This record gives sequence, structure tokens and C-alpha cells, in this order.
Amino acid sequence: MQLNPGERIDQLQSAGVKIIQSPEVFAFSLDAVLLAHFAEATKKSRVADLAAGNGAVGLFLAGRTGAHVDMVELQPRLADMATRSIALNEMVGQVSMVNADLGTAWNHLTKDSYDVVTCNPPYFKVRPGDVQNPNEALALARHELTTDFATVARISAGLLKTGGKAFFVHRPDRLPELLSTLAAADLAPKRIRFVHPKVGREANMVLIETRRSGKPDGVRIMSPIFVYNDQGDYNPEVAQLIHD
Amino acid sequence: MQLNPGERIDQLQSAGVKIIQSPEVFAFSLDAVLLAHFAEATKKSRVADLAAGNGAVGLFLAGRTGAHVDMVELQPRLADMATRSIALNEMVGQVSMVNADLGTAWNHLTKDSYDVVTCNPPYFKVRPGDVQNPNEALALARHELTTDFATVARISAGLLKTGGKAFFVHRPDRLPELLSTLAAADLAPKRIRFVHPKVGREANMVLIETRRSGKPDGVRIMSPIFVYNDQGDYNPEVAQLIHD
Repeated sequence: MQLNPGERIDQLQSAGVKIIQSPEVFAFSLDAVLLAHFAEATKKSRVADLAAGNGAVGLFLAGRTGAHVDMVELQPRLADMATRSIALNEMVGQVSMVNADLGTAWNHLTKDSYDVVTCNPPYFKVRPGDVQNPNEALALARHELTTDFATVARISAGLLKTGGKAFFVHRPDRLPELLSTLAAADLAPKRIRFVHPKVGREANMVLIETRRSGKPDGVRIMSPIFVYNDQGDYNPEVAQLIHD
Repeated sequence: MQLNPGERIDQLQSAGVKIIQSPEVFAFSLDAVLLAHFAEATKKSRVADLAAGNGAVGLFLAGRTGAHVDMVELQPRLADMATRSIALNEMVGQVSMVNADLGTAWNHLTKDSYDVVTCNPPYFKVRPGDVQNPNEALALARHELTTDFATVARISAGLLKTGGKAFFVHRPDRLPELLSTLAAADLAPKRIRFVHPKVGREANMVLIETRRSGKPDGVRIMSPIFVYNDQGDYNPEVAQLIHD
């Protein structure tokens, strides 16, 4: 396995997979681990993972569930890292990577055919005068420079079978907009789980499960995740995801 | 103080107020206590409490903060209980009760004049074939028979000064609809706090703070309330509200 300069291989024990990372351009974080854990899939599921980055979410999910995963990532360097990670984990028949803008995903993946979509999209809106990360790769991963949540929701819904589920991780400060955007895309929220750094602190992530053409009422707000305890160690639920 | 048959006087120590209750028609519950605690007001605030029931939210808030509170309640028997509770607590100059449909509140209270609105509205939608409580008083308090959340939001916004805050308690399974309804009424969510019966269980209440004509982004998801511990006793934060 060829590693380019600045790259390293990290392992997520709980999913039994190795990921090629490069902090210079992108390294998966807790968001990806939590999304891959939150998403529900089985060995029979066909999963599309959009804005796949270096493939962390898709590879974790494929490793944990045995699902078939098709990944879409805009940035060639990240898509290349993911492609090499697929080979590294001997998942070539199970996991694929398309190097494309997720807005064009319908041209590469079959519409109305997926059981599950996952997406850890760029979190931050671009406003005039905002300072973005001067590192273009990191800026693209974090800021809505080439896509936005309305596109993510619309493309996700179109890939799903009716009744299929899309799972997102995002920032809770955008919750009202996220929910209205999902509704406009015919994705009905079914489960929401907030992630707080610790007890007593505000949520800094939100996990959302939606169902294509589901009934609009009846969302369940699950018991939250508190990442760290008061000593700054991972709480058991999170530690298990990372270390086991 | 005259008590009618079936009535009793309960005391909320933390607010220093007594409430005339009748389980036959309505008795305040944890929802009211949590809403009165969640709402922010000072001695200088003018507060409108809609769907006031027997006045629990308004009296708790008046007792805790010294705010001026105008209450609106449709049911004559509940409005009468609240009126007698106002006298019982010697709050006649501070707290008032209008016996009216909250949809007509603009006819009784001055529009665009309130710093704060609070409302613990009926939680349940009425659907064809639904079985409501055969006790009409309880059915009116629990089901959207005479009002709905769109009306609650619209009337609340109209009572508030620009920048004034409305505080609601509702059911989290309606969250997407609540947020879109609030947005349509020009009430921007600022803080949301979920209430879970205990750790590991789904939320069964949501507290929402909104600001009239506030910016749409930037809602804060506060650390949740867990009502009971594993032994079935109130957790300290809740115990303090009820017993202190």
C-alpha cells in the first residue's frame, strides 16, 4: 500500500478497519465515528455515502455491518485516499468510490435504489466576509463552498428507495433550517440524537435519522451522548466506539 | 378563601406560591414547573401567560421573579380557580386573569407590549376518530380542540415587543412542526432544552425559548433535564424546583 507524504494509517478497532489519513487535507473525527454508529444498516443494505472525505463513514459502516457502500467525494486527493483505504481493507467488491460533486451523484449512482444514505456534510455556511480556512482542502470539507444542505437533502432523497433512510450529522445551531430543508426534500425526521461535549454543556453535534416519504409527525429525541466525563476521559459509550 | 368541592391547595415551595387545584378538571404538573423555571423574567418584565389553566405557570413565575403577569384562560372554572389563587397569594395588583379564548388575547391585552410570553398549550392534535378524554375540561387542556400551535405562536408573537421572548413547553415528537410554525410566526428559536424521564430514555417534553423577529440561525441546544434517577427519585435540579 502506497502512502503519500504526510499520510498515515489509523485504525478504528470497533469497526475493524484501517483508514489512510492526512491531517494536512482531512482526518476523520468523532463526527464520522458517531454517524457510522448511528446509521442503521445490515449486510443486505445498499448504502450511499455522500461527501465521503477519506471514506471514514463508509468504511466504518461497511466494516461494522457488512453493507455494500458507494461513496462520493469531490476532492481528488481525498477520493484517492479512500480508494486506497478500500484496497487496504480488502473491500474492493463491497465498497466503491466515485470522485464527483455530490450534486451530480444521480449521474453515477442509481436513483431510487438505496436503502441507506449517510452524509457528514460541510457544516458552515459561507457568508460574505467570512474567513475560511486558507487550506483549500479543509475549507471545502468544512464550508458550504461547493454544496449546501438543501443539495445534500435533495440528492439523498433521490437516491433512496421510498421508505429508505438517510442519516446526517450536522451542527445543532442550524437545527430549525435543517428540519425545514429535510421536510422540503420529503425526508421525514424519525430519530434525533444530540451530542454534548459533557454533562451541563450545550450540544455541538446533532445526528438525524430521516425516512424518505415518511410521516411528518413522531420524531423521537433519543437520550443524548455526552462525549467526555468530568475528568476529560471518553464516556463508556464513546470509548467503546473508538477503542473496542 | 372559598374552596369548591374537589379542590385543594397545593404549594410550590421554590416559588413561594399556593395554587388551588382540582384533579377533576386540572392539576398543574411538572411541565408547568419546568416552563416557569425555564422562562426568563425580572421584576420589571410584563409577562403574558396563555392557556393559563389554573394559573400555575403565571403564579410560579410571578412568585419567583416578581414580574407582572397577565393570564388568559378559556375555561371559566379554571380561570376562577386562578383568580382565587391570585387573591390567596396576595398578588392582585401583580397578576391578572382574563377568561377568554387565547385567540382573542389581542382584544384583552395590549399588542406589541409584552417582554415575555409563556404558554403550556394543549399538546395533542385532534385527528378524526381520535378518542379524547371524556372529561371535557381535561380534553380541552390536552387536545387542540379550541386552539392549535399556529394560533398560539401567532398570538404570542403579536403580544411581544420586538425582541421580546416567548417560552413554550410542548411535545418533542412535534418538534419539526413546532419549529416551522414558530418561524412562520416570526419567532426565532434561541434555546431548546429537552426533558427526559431518565438517562437512556427518549425526551417527553421540550422547552423552547424564542425571540420575536430574532435571527433564524444560532439556536442553542442546552444540556437536557433528566427528571428521575435510576432509583425513581427526582434528580437534584428538579427536586430543587419542587421542594425548596
